[in-house]
Amino acid sequence: MTGNVIVGQSGGPTCVINASLAGVYKTAKDRGATKVYGMLNGIKGLLERRYVDLAEHLKGDLDIELLKRTPSSYLGSCRYKLPEICDNREIYDTIFEILGELNINYFFYIGGNDSMDTIKKLSDYAILINSDIKFIGVPKTIDNDLAMTDHTPGYGSAAKYIAASTKEIIRDGLVYDQQSVTVIEIMGRNAGWLTAAAALAKGDDCEGVDLIYLPEIPFDIDKFMTKIKELHKVKKSIVVAVSEGIKVADGRYVFELTDHIEFVDMFGHKQLQGTAKYLTELISREIGCKTRAIEFTTLQRAASHLASRTDITEAFQVGGAAVKAASEGYTGRVVVLERVSSDPYICGTDIKDVHKIANVEKKVPLEWINVEEASVSSEFIRYATPLIQAELSPIMVNGLPKHIKLNL
Amino acid sequence: MTGNVIVGQSGGPTCVINASLAGVYKTAKDRGATKVYGMLNGIKGLLERRYVDLAEHLKGDLDIELLKRTPSSYLGSCRYKLPEICDNREIYDTIFEILGELNINYFFYIGGNDSMDTIKKLSDYAILINSDIKFIGVPKTIDNDLAMTDHTPGYGSAAKYIAASTKEIIRDGLVYDQQSVTVIEIMGRNAGWLTAAAALAKGDDCEGVDLIYLPEIPFDIDKFMTKIKELHKVKKSIVVAVSEGIKVADGRYVFELTDHIEFVDMFGHKQLQGTAKYLTELISREIGCKTRAIEFTTLQRAASHLASRTDITEAFQVGGAAVKAASEGYTGRVVVLERVSSDPYICGTDIKDVHKIANVEKKVPLEWINVEEASVSSEFIRYATPLIQAELSPIMVNGLPKHIKLNL
Repeated sequence: MTGNVIVGQSGGPTCVINASLAGVYKTAKDRGATKVYGMLNGIKGLLERRYVDLAEHLKGDLDIELLKRTPSSYLGSCRYKLPEICDNREIYDTIFEILGELNINYFFYIGGNDSMDTIKKLSDYAILINSDIKFIGVPKTIDNDLAMTDHTPGYGSAAKYIAASTKEIIRDGLVYDQQSVTVIEIMGRNAGWLTAAAALAKGDDCEGVDLIYLPEIPFDIDKFMTKIKELHKVKKSIVVAVSEGIKVADGRYVFELTDHIEFVDMFGHKQLQGTAKYLTELISREIGCKTRAIEFTTLQRAASHLASRTDITEAFQVGGAAVKAASEGYTGRVVVLERVSSDPYICGTDIKDVHKIANVEKKVPLEWINVEEASVSSEFIRYATPLIQAELSPIMVNGLPKHIKLNL
Repeated sequence: MTGNVIVGQSGGPTCVINASLAGVYKTAKDRGATKVYGMLNGIKGLLERRYVDLAEHLKGDLDIELLKRTPSSYLGSCRYKLPEICDNREIYDTIFEILGELNINYFFYIGGNDSMDTIKKLSDYAILINSDIKFIGVPKTIDNDLAMTDHTPGYGSAAKYIAASTKEIIRDGLVYDQQSVTVIEIMGRNAGWLTAAAALAKGDDCEGVDLIYLPEIPFDIDKFMTKIKELHKVKKSIVVAVSEGIKVADGRYVFELTDHIEFVDMFGHKQLQGTAKYLTELISREIGCKTRAIEFTTLQRAASHLASRTDITEAFQVGGAAVKAASEGYTGRVVVLERVSSDPYICGTDIKDVHKIANVEKKVPLEWINVEEASVSSEFIRYATPLIQAELSPIMVNGLPKHIKLNL
């Protein structure tokens, strides 16, 4: 490829979003790109002319290896949605002016479905103004909710962290000769992919979680309590995985259920943290046993010390595939992962029209959810298991994983 | 050594309490013990004659290796304090009767300062009744609050998990072009050792936490808010580490501070989870910026996937040293770790009179805490850094760390 490249990262960070950045950078350089710029804080930073020449920061193969192992967005991120073209052409003109100043021929944006909206609008505008710049989206999200792709880079590592931590928590719950109920709250407001990953903890050395509740299905609090009471009769330690976003039939989030004003936070805010806490207090009130509420919080997307090597490899690959597609002349496309088989796991890349991906949310198929048993099906296990396989050892320095930091 | 051995685990689990069990088991077998029994759920289970012959469950070196890598107590645990001897001799007679039935010559108990109380009372009673059974305590606690020992097995791994996770959270906080305050709540009701470990995140690739608050020092909420406001003027992302047990000058826990009834839980319980949540809501109200409250919860003591090899090795060693001490005729003793030097790190074992250890709580020395800067001193860093060094790779099967499970 000839000419200059610019790449940005957008939306919530993941463990492997930097592996995709590494894939774009290394492939572009290998294919002969003159300059590879990184926009700082995504398109928002680009609008303020904030960018770096990546070659000045990534000095060699060790830096690339560190980048693959560094969580969160190396270039910084933003949550910024471009206006509709018809509403504000000026902002598009500014962006293309800046891209012109930098002689950009190829534009890559690593992100989720909101970020793909940016690729859609910019590639549409390029057609309008007859620009030759190629715009390609690189998929990323722990939520796994992107359409048209088998899965998204970032999901496998988050799923591995969730499965391993759930396994450790289950074991911890077994030690006392006393009954307890642990409720683990997992990210995913509308899609239950991450919560379902708690099911992967089960194996011949782990009994697994007892109940799983995804946001795809309305949550029935009475049925839940009935199940807990039944389990309580036969089991010492009960562990439940719930999505932060589960709602009851009338559409209220579970953490909003209480009619006790005490349960709303100090300022009356609706907060998505609190589902596990609400449920454990309910159990504690009705059964009186020991309960624990555990939230995995930010660590789900940041714990690169336990990343999936499959995930890191694929994140790098989609970055490389984006560069290949752009240099072959494609624009307005998103790289997707296409699974050939699950056992043995074989997965390749393809490119799809961004208009079919932007702003679409992919949920867990309802047929993979067993509502009566509050569990996920073996299809889900077959789907997700390959994605958490293998590790890429962190580079440990002084007892801790070493990261690479952008020094500005 | 000749005769039979019994070993139990007590108190809160850690990542390495099973490495100490492995140390006791393997050393006892190597030294010629006939039987090595494991009591189930500690002394409480022993009183119900619940125990196993460990040789029937630990079949070889692979099992020993898995045991070293399995978090939580393999034999189960209990929280049970023996009555004073003068108040209830019957219970002691029952215990010695059971030990007699099993022809026990050596009794080992792995636990914290409450568990060492069990060793103290049993060894005292043995003197009273002229029993020859040797009672030795094996130290364990993530809290690092045991007296007479440089540190306790379990602390190094918890500290490593806290430091690594804090480092990942700090990095996650930096990505958006928006101000935020993150408050991380860490275990340790009275002693700040675990919270102080958040300071280990700092390095040339990580700016570290901005403020650290330990329970050893009364918490001044006004000074805290002043510091946050000052940092807020100059920094984008602020990260604070607080102990779950910090209290204000009048002795109330910080999470009890609010005069809003909303902040007390649904049942009016005082809960030790909630300090971070209280502080972030306060910051959100006074400054109006984005905040996050993160609790490390159970994972601090269960995340063996990121255990410290130094810690695992020492946990095994104290188990072995306990067996050696008992076979040399000592009783009423606890194995301690004695540091010879920090750089290079050299640490050996010794034995101490259990009467000097049981029920004593060791806190962070006040001279290691910088109250004005809300930080810990370089002495703490020098003390703790060697304890988090090196890893013992989990044995990964199907993408997750493999554990060993006691099948009854």
